[in-house]
Amino acid sequence: MNTMIKEHERIDDLHRNGLKIIQDPKNFCFGVDAVLLAHFAKVRKEELVLDLGTGTGIIPILLYALTKGKKFIGLEIQKDSVDIARRSLELNNITDAIEIHEGDIKELATLYKPSSFDVITTNPPYMNAGGGIINDYSPKAIARHEILCSLEDIVAGASKLLKTSGRFYMINRPNRLIDIICTMRNYKLEPKVIRFIHSYVDKEPTMVLVEAVRSGKPFLTVMPPIIIYDAEGKYTSEVMDIYYG
Amino acid sequence: MNTMIKEHERIDDLHRNGLKIIQDPKNFCFGVDAVLLAHFAKVRKEELVLDLGTGTGIIPILLYALTKGKKFIGLEIQKDSVDIARRSLELNNITDAIEIHEGDIKELATLYKPSSFDVITTNPPYMNAGGGIINDYSPKAIARHEILCSLEDIVAGASKLLKTSGRFYMINRPNRLIDIICTMRNYKLEPKVIRFIHSYVDKEPTMVLVEAVRSGKPFLTVMPPIIIYDAEGKYTSEVMDIYYG
Repeated sequence: MNTMIKEHERIDDLHRNGLKIIQDPKNFCFGVDAVLLAHFAKVRKEELVLDLGTGTGIIPILLYALTKGKKFIGLEIQKDSVDIARRSLELNNITDAIEIHEGDIKELATLYKPSSFDVITTNPPYMNAGGGIINDYSPKAIARHEILCSLEDIVAGASKLLKTSGRFYMINRPNRLIDIICTMRNYKLEPKVIRFIHSYVDKEPTMVLVEAVRSGKPFLTVMPPIIIYDAEGKYTSEVMDIYYG
Repeated sequence: MNTMIKEHERIDDLHRNGLKIIQDPKNFCFGVDAVLLAHFAKVRKEELVLDLGTGTGIIPILLYALTKGKKFIGLEIQKDSVDIARRSLELNNITDAIEIHEGDIKELATLYKPSSFDVITTNPPYMNAGGGIINDYSPKAIARHEILCSLEDIVAGASKLLKTSGRFYMINRPNRLIDIICTMRNYKLEPKVIRFIHSYVDKEPTMVLVEAVRSGKPFLTVMPPIIIYDAEGKYTSEVMDIYYG
């Protein structure tokens, strides 16, 4: 197996069906956000799923393990991440169910047919590019900041590619929630479920999960919060279930 | 004192500076939502405050007790509620600080000058009027359903009357949050703070508080949730403070 990984890389156990993933700590490793998004997204039997900005493929791999979806496609612009993700698929012997495509979210309309996906997921860059000049094009910076695509690029593209009533799942920072909601509605993706993640019950949430439905009717469900740590600083049982199932 | 109340009415103690309020259980009594909104709203020294759809005046009376605002105006369309509210002001001897105006939220632009208020609060009807025919024009129905005004009427009116950087406070149902947020932003009221209220930490929220700022920049803070009951079913200490301070 070790012939499949390069110097600096490591193989992490996903604690799901024996699945593993290759990570390069010198670049960008997936975080708890990707794991939470994969558990939040609902994928039904035989559905076709696209993950936008898939990085090293963590979300398609977890969704493959957790759901009965038919096919999972991960789109990623960074060549090095595409290479790691494809080697993880070979390592797990799941190249039939999952495909990693190298491509640009801004060109989604030319990459896939309109209304062709049941589910689209994304764990996009959190940070607004803002007006400043960006000099950092490192893999970490690209994964975290809106350098190569904006929130609007992602939402607009997802809206075009989803079938009517198709579902769009995003994890992001609560600070961006108003932009997220208004952009989604502008592109006919109606937010239907929101869930906040708090480190402790008496702290502000650090992340927010959103489910939006293509051409859905307005009616929002806010789920009970996910609390990471209990009063003693131990993982809550819900988080233990998410991590170790 | 009893000469100030009519048959069916009662006098409730507000547990704040000895203040009391007249209520008519046959019509509509204020609920925990009004109390939570009054505690959520920030009113600074010398500020001018307008409460839209003030009912029997609970929010201006509580804001008078809790803050150093200069003047509190409550606008109410229902004559019976206006009458009760005015008698509560006399009962408390606070007719200098608080005024109750009889009037229609849809005519706000003709009632007050543009950009004249520092703070506007509202605990509006929760229920979308929808497409159905409404036959119930009872005080309870008018307070709960969008019969006499819509969410958009309220937000549009508040936007006109608030000064730049003035604050708008609303409590509503989480189901309506997407409509609320998108309508606010359409009228240049940027949501800046959101707080959810849950009966129990593991239940969906039943209410949501929103602070929006006139012409504010996008950046949302989601506060830690307000939890009403602890695991034993007793009021949490935060809620005890709000009720009995």
